[in-house]
Amino acid sequence: MEYRIEKDTMGEVKVPIDAYYGAQTQRSVDNFKIARDINRMPIEVIRGFAYLKKAAALANKDAGVLSAEKCELIGRVCDEILAGKLDDQFPLVVWQTGSGTQTNMNVNEVIANRAHVLNGGKLTDKEKVLLPNDDVNKSQSSNDTFPTAMHIAAYIMVKEVTLPGLEKLLKTLRKKSRDFMPVVKIGRTHFMDATPLTLGQEFSGYASQLEHGIRAIKNALLHLAELAIGGTAVGTGINTPPDFDECVSKRVSEMTGQPFVKAPNKFEALASHDAIVEVHGALKQVAVSLMKIANDIRMLSSGPRAGIGEIHLPENEPGSSIMPGKVNPTQCEALTMIATQVMGNDVAISVGGASGQFELNVFKPMIIYNFLHSARLIGEGCVSFNDRCAVGIEPVKENIKKHLDDSLMLVTALNPKIGYYKAASIAQKAFKENKTLKQAAVESGLLTAEEFDEWVDPSKMVGRLDTFPE
Amino acid sequence: MEYRIEKDTMGEVKVPIDAYYGAQTQRSVDNFKIARDINRMPIEVIRGFAYLKKAAALANKDAGVLSAEKCELIGRVCDEILAGKLDDQFPLVVWQTGSGTQTNMNVNEVIANRAHVLNGGKLTDKEKVLLPNDDVNKSQSSNDTFPTAMHIAAYIMVKEVTLPGLEKLLKTLRKKSRDFMPVVKIGRTHFMDATPLTLGQEFSGYASQLEHGIRAIKNALLHLAELAIGGTAVGTGINTPPDFDECVSKRVSEMTGQPFVKAPNKFEALASHDAIVEVHGALKQVAVSLMKIANDIRMLSSGPRAGIGEIHLPENEPGSSIMPGKVNPTQCEALTMIATQVMGNDVAISVGGASGQFELNVFKPMIIYNFLHSARLIGEGCVSFNDRCAVGIEPVKENIKKHLDDSLMLVTALNPKIGYYKAASIAQKAFKENKTLKQAAVESGLLTAEEFDEWVDPSKMVGRLDTFPE
Amino acid sequence: MEYRIEKDTMGEVKVPIDAYYGAQTQRSVDNFKIARDINRMPIEVIRGFAYLKKAAALANKDAGVLSAEKCELIGRVCDEILAGKLDDQFPLVVWQTGSGTQTNMNVNEVIANRAHVLNGGKLTDKEKVLLPNDDVNKSQSSNDTFPTAMHIAAYIMVKEVTLPGLEKLLKTLRKKSRDFMPVVKIGRTHFMDATPLTLGQEFSGYASQLEHGIRAIKNALLHLAELAIGGTAVGTGINTPPDFDECVSKRVSEMTGQPFVKAPNKFEALASHDAIVEVHGALKQVAVSLMKIANDIRMLSSGPRAGIGEIHLPENEPGSSIMPGKVNPTQCEALTMIATQVMGNDVAISVGGASGQFELNVFKPMIIYNFLHSARLIGEGCVSFNDRCAVGIEPVKENIKKHLDDSLMLVTALNPKIGYYKAASIAQKAFKENKTLKQAAVESGLLTAEEFDEWVDPSKMVGRLDTFPE
Amino acid sequence: MEYRIEKDTMGEVKVPIDAYYGAQTQRSVDNFKIARDINRMPIEVIRGFAYLKKAAALANKDAGVLSAEKCELIGRVCDEILAGKLDDQFPLVVWQTGSGTQTNMNVNEVIANRAHVLNGGKLTDKEKVLLPNDDVNKSQSSNDTFPTAMHIAAYIMVKEVTLPGLEKLLKTLRKKSRDFMPVVKIGRTHFMDATPLTLGQEFSGYASQLEHGIRAIKNALLHLAELAIGGTAVGTGINTPPDFDECVSKRVSEMTGQPFVKAPNKFEALASHDAIVEVHGALKQVAVSLMKIANDIRMLSSGPRAGIGEIHLPENEPGSSIMPGKVNPTQCEALTMIATQVMGNDVAISVGGASGQFELNVFKPMIIYNFLHSARLIGEGCVSFNDRCAVGIEPVKENIKKHLDDSLMLVTALNPKIGYYKAASIAQKAFKENKTLKQAAVESGLLTAEEFDEWVDPSKMVGRLDTFPE
Repeated sequence: MEYRIEKDTMGEVKVPIDAYYGAQTQRSVDNFKIARDINRMPIEVIRGFAYLKKAAALANKDAGVLSAEKCELIGRVCDEILAGKLDDQFPLVVWQTGSGTQTNMNVNEVIANRAHVLNGGKLTDKEKVLLPNDDVNKSQSSNDTFPTAMHIAAYIMVKEVTLPGLEKLLKTLRKKSRDFMPVVKIGRTHFMDATPLTLGQEFSGYASQLEHGIRAIKNALLHLAELAIGGTAVGTGINTPPDFDECVSKRVSEMTGQPFVKAPNKFEALASHDAIVEVHGALKQVAVSLMKIANDIRMLSSGPRAGIGEIHLPENEPGSSIMPGKVNPTQCEALTMIATQVMGNDVAISVGGASGQFELNVFKPMIIYNFLHSARLIGEGCVSFNDRCAVGIEPVKENIKKHLDDSLMLVTALNPKIGYYKAASIAQKAFKENKTLKQAAVESGLLTAEEFDEWVDPSKMVGRLDTFPE
Repeated sequence: MEYRIEKDTMGEVKVPIDAYYGAQTQRSVDNFKIARDINRMPIEVIRGFAYLKKAAALANKDAGVLSAEKCELIGRVCDEILAGKLDDQFPLVVWQTGSGTQTNMNVNEVIANRAHVLNGGKLTDKEKVLLPNDDVNKSQSSNDTFPTAMHIAAYIMVKEVTLPGLEKLLKTLRKKSRDFMPVVKIGRTHFMDATPLTLGQEFSGYASQLEHGIRAIKNALLHLAELAIGGTAVGTGINTPPDFDECVSKRVSEMTGQPFVKAPNKFEALASHDAIVEVHGALKQVAVSLMKIANDIRMLSSGPRAGIGEIHLPENEPGSSIMPGKVNPTQCEALTMIATQVMGNDVAISVGGASGQFELNVFKPMIIYNFLHSARLIGEGCVSFNDRCAVGIEPVKENIKKHLDDSLMLVTALNPKIGYYKAASIAQKAFKENKTLKQAAVESGLLTAEEFDEWVDPSKMVGRLDTFPE
Repeated sequence: MEYRIEKDTMGEVKVPIDAYYGAQTQRSVDNFKIARDINRMPIEVIRGFAYLKKAAALANKDAGVLSAEKCELIGRVCDEILAGKLDDQFPLVVWQTGSGTQTNMNVNEVIANRAHVLNGGKLTDKEKVLLPNDDVNKSQSSNDTFPTAMHIAAYIMVKEVTLPGLEKLLKTLRKKSRDFMPVVKIGRTHFMDATPLTLGQEFSGYASQLEHGIRAIKNALLHLAELAIGGTAVGTGINTPPDFDECVSKRVSEMTGQPFVKAPNKFEALASHDAIVEVHGALKQVAVSLMKIANDIRMLSSGPRAGIGEIHLPENEPGSSIMPGKVNPTQCEALTMIATQVMGNDVAISVGGASGQFELNVFKPMIIYNFLHSARLIGEGCVSFNDRCAVGIEPVKENIKKHLDDSLMLVTALNPKIGYYKAASIAQKAFKENKTLKQAAVESGLLTAEEFDEWVDPSKMVGRLDTFPE
Repeated sequence: MEYRIEKDTMGEVKVPIDAYYGAQTQRSVDNFKIARDINRMPIEVIRGFAYLKKAAALANKDAGVLSAEKCELIGRVCDEILAGKLDDQFPLVVWQTGSGTQTNMNVNEVIANRAHVLNGGKLTDKEKVLLPNDDVNKSQSSNDTFPTAMHIAAYIMVKEVTLPGLEKLLKTLRKKSRDFMPVVKIGRTHFMDATPLTLGQEFSGYASQLEHGIRAIKNALLHLAELAIGGTAVGTGINTPPDFDECVSKRVSEMTGQPFVKAPNKFEALASHDAIVEVHGALKQVAVSLMKIANDIRMLSSGPRAGIGEIHLPENEPGSSIMPGKVNPTQCEALTMIATQVMGNDVAISVGGASGQFELNVFKPMIIYNFLHSARLIGEGCVSFNDRCAVGIEPVKENIKKHLDDSLMLVTALNPKIGYYKAASIAQKAFKENKTLKQAAVESGLLTAEEFDEWVDPSKMVGRLDTFPE
């Protein structure tokens, strides 16, 4: 490979001759050879930086500390980054300095050098039209830009991937709940036969879980909307023009269409990542819900001959390399693996979030890496589960009816008539003598066959059938 | 020990002659000999049941399915439970059935038997004035009562212990922030010397973390206010009178003074514990904050001679059994241990919360045990930390001044004057030649001594000093 | 309450007049009002201290730095502590100083004062026969005694409670595996019908998991056997006589009958708790195994009419307060709650273990509290699960046969005869046309009824039936 | 893109015309659009499969159930896969079926199709020389091959990346310990000044932690060496020739040079992943150690003027985009972020490991993804930390001396001379009156200046200086 020589405050560094990045990026490439092919800094963070650097340039121009020409050049490169044209210029990994300084400098260098080329210059020119630290990073520090880029990236991912995925699945679960509302089936508590409910009621619980989870995420987004920008090195805003925080936040808000605001307290915003911890707590809550939902659906569809078998899932692929004709609940499996991953990511984020010291938390790249991972997995996982599984769920009515008819727990309907204790004796008799509940009831002499038929009617045991509005 | 014979639907059981509890409680005592002396079902859950059983009796009476006399008797025993008079009648442990059925029956049995005695009867009477299942548990199931008692207990603990503790500490941190606002000190990022801020600004970050945490807890309480009661066995409300959920929730709300409402979806309320997961997520967020705050305070007070030593903590006790005169930041240590415990409890709750199946989650006792543990530890831990440490924190001005004066990072103020790159050369020169920044600056020829004094003034580098209103 | 005045290096403190503990214990009582009624320092730690203090006194005597009389007095009180006679003299909580210094001083004070009384003195005497710091704590520091007591307590708990519980359950699982070895049943993968195995083979997997888990625990015990004693304040052994570490470790080893040795590196032994982290990692592995085992058993026993229903569990108690006659897999529920708790405790221990600084880890009380909790829960939980559930498990042969006969996955036996692809078409035909496999096979024309009967024989599909030796 | 038509038992699928993979791979591509660009199935798993498929072909040939020609063709493609020539043929993601069946089929299809081409055929030929299920997958199931590939991949990663990385760092820490053994410095407990030790002793603790960690990993590898192969669908070994498990394990062992053996119990090997849980528990233990070590080194190097500043780290890059001349402990930061990630991954693996059901755990891809991530991060992280940080650590003797001279805790040496209580009064006097310890001691009248100089000699307070052998 051919190289050119770049310099930073520590001296000279060899950089690939065509790379837009410079000395500090190259130092990080050389110093952190860790998981290089699998743990690049997420591109969403780079895009968050692009919004930020453009907004900062505009705010600097407005404050009279950056020329209009420089501002325009910075903006042009940022647009290229947002358009995905420079993705290969960001080679750094997550496992670098904990402040993300090297990624901030990577962005600064790429913007400065690319701007110089856009301006007609050459990468090997000694003097460039922009300086990474003095121009592109003007009024900024890694310590406020990196957490700002984190929040931009996280917020957008949640709004564009996580929530739409959840809402798509929620909509399907509500529809299934409506469709299945009349289907009376046996309930199960402790994984044991219990009193009946309808399949629609069962699905309404899943929908209710997701509704609560979506609300929790939205509640937490308020915290995530706060941007650290303007805090610079330690939160005091050293070297910033007046109201820089406000100006940049507004610009970012306009560009992204998201309601970003300046963080009211910059010291918190640099030294902790409670906002990320908070939103990820809500993502973890949703993961907990999805684990339950996908497990239920997996088990309800089990069989086809020796399981529960009360619902049928779409058959997407052959399920076994050795057992011919086998079909498995694979979308449930992917979704529960995702849920598990999010539960693990939550611990990584919490420990990282708790480990800030004084004016800076230096677990930033790890924290945002895990956050974006979870947010994306939930969103895309829900879409996959929805499209390839949930929309196609159908009841298996023969099995549902059989399980309901056999049930001993219909006896519960007798409590108000003959009391819990006598009712229990009937259920026990039926179980031990392997009889139907009705047989046992009549043989017990506690009620007549007619009374049994009148009192023990599953369709009357399921209460009000509330359905979600369409 | 002397015994009497009690019966349930499975047969006879020997029970201590004076115990108010009956056969099913005794079966659980016999069947679950696990951590008996350290993991009793939390008394707060029992009290939650007392509120609930009284409220349910009133609702049953109003619905015409329970006599006024029985209702009144149930209420009297519940009042005794709430007054702590029957604490020794609840011997069951956390590690029992996952629905908490045995604790529900424990409460039902104690109420029935104690009511019989209050009514003038004897424990050995064959017929009792109340039946545990048919009267005390009327219109109820363990499956809706236990989660209701969980929510009542959790909500009250958060409101009466957690939030007051956090708010007490928040108030102190705000006061310290105000008091310390003029104290200019060195900042630290990456645990390395950075640009200055004031000690008050540093503390404002801690206060801001707690403010956000308190808001997160309060947001989540909305979910926790939903009561499962009225769902009975599987969520359908079998064997309940009309509007039983609404009536009981209102009664509980009145008795406790907390804004409980009926859960809009009972299937969720029995089969998942997302509400607990959600609030505990917020508790975990606060634990993360407290870990950071207590660690900072521990390290800021380190020394007295060979550490950071910028603040002084109250001396509460001799710190060492071997090193005479040693004093340690023991309240920080207790608080960080608590934070760590809460982070562990969060995983237990999440895994438990994800493990529900069909119509019931059977990890209920474990979940509420961990929740109450965390909520109490945070509340009481904050009070202890506040009273024995935070209120007495004082700056050590000599050390603060010395660190500030020595700092090389004041050089940052020169960026707008001479640029980042030249400024860096001054800092490097000072460091390598072990000189003061001013010496190095002047020797560099890049600025004069007068310019240095004018441009490098720590008190001008700390930005706006926003203080919390008193 | 009546008080007497006690003194320490910080001044005077009021102590309950009859308490054997002194000033420093009382300071901790006053300073840490956190979870007082539920989180006492585990009594096992106190007993670990009793072994240690006695052993240290003997070593000090042998080294000529403690009189025989004092040594004998110390030993007598330690024996009383070990006999449980002084349990109420240790009122401190887990949430104290992170070094456990206050518990070390609690023990030192109780020994000194109680010895004085045993020696004929009075608690109010000004001069006492023993001084807590100079005599009882001679050659020791909290920093080496507390981790030593941790290891003693942890090791004994694992050997006396955890491993016996696991081995008891393992023995039962092996026996069940032998007993059930001939019972051919359907296998399930992805919770879907698969090729057959025997119930004994299924149980052999559970036994194998526990065997591996027990081996993992035993491997890790090697690390736990290392005692920190002799390191004193920072690991250097300041103020200890020669070979004090070796002498004390031998004494403790003799007294407890466990193979304790001196830690080869005291700096690690004070500053980290990797040994606890290591053993608890093995406990967590076992928890993971128990979760799987108990879940399987719960699900295999599900029904009785609308579930899997292939095994029957002992009926220990009525399962529902509303559903008469219901019986639930309650021991499985307790055991899976325990598994979940251990998984949470593991995170608390790991975070605490990672949080040591320089010469001391100050998360010690939290770490040992969680460790002992897990170790005890696993041990006692396994005994309960074994005695009240596992020993009574029986196959339900009708259901097992029915599921096996209905299965489509027996088709797998045809792969070597007609190939995977044709076999798949038979299974699919049977499923879609709701026929038996044999019907579909014969109708497909790919084989004759005679060939089917010869080739598709479940009893030949289960491979070798290895049984555990009795 | 151009396509060809491929078929499986469910029908026709369009596949990119040049792809070696077939219908089932394409179905998975279409069905699981989740994190496609960041979560490919780790290439190490594919390579594990290549070893396995080649070994299985040889065993099948030896057993007389596969022709020598087919065996040879399979082996040739496997060699190509191991040489990295077909990496782009494995497009599937982690979030697929939980058994990894689709990746097994991906491998089967690529081998069958590539072999056909190697054999002179064309991808569009109707008949191929090999069939994916009947030839490449002969005597195998996904249920035994995927866990086998997991173990091969995991074992090799641990042996080739994790352990060498740890051992490299261990060697450096031992060398530093030897080099620094004479450097007497102040100790710190509770982050407060304590009695002295040497810098070499301090580093010996780090080395001891890693030694124990490496031993724990090696202990656990025994479990990981067990291969599931031979269990086929449910563990019974249906459709395998005699001793297939033994033959394949031996072949894999020969090819890889690692001591793989057949799993003694195949039911465990398919249905649980306790071996992975066990080894990852050891990785997590090491992460806990690395967190402590890197944190200590970060804090010991803090400053340069207002921190601890007792060691100096190599200066690798400019540390700040705004603070000129700043240098940060960036390698410590990367390593602690890695430690945190591993702690999170451990939870994901544990929850996944606990979630198996009956004859199969279907969290396999998630489990191996997290395992390989941790194992690689630790290995590569240690090399980076070693090469760019640890090898260059040097003591800063001026600061070390200053801290030592100022220390009050040297008073501990007086305990055996004047007792703990009088010694405490000297330390307290020195602290309160801001004097040196010697001044306070002499002024107290408890000892003379000469006695002080004789008794209080830090170099005599550090005990034996054991060094690691070179």
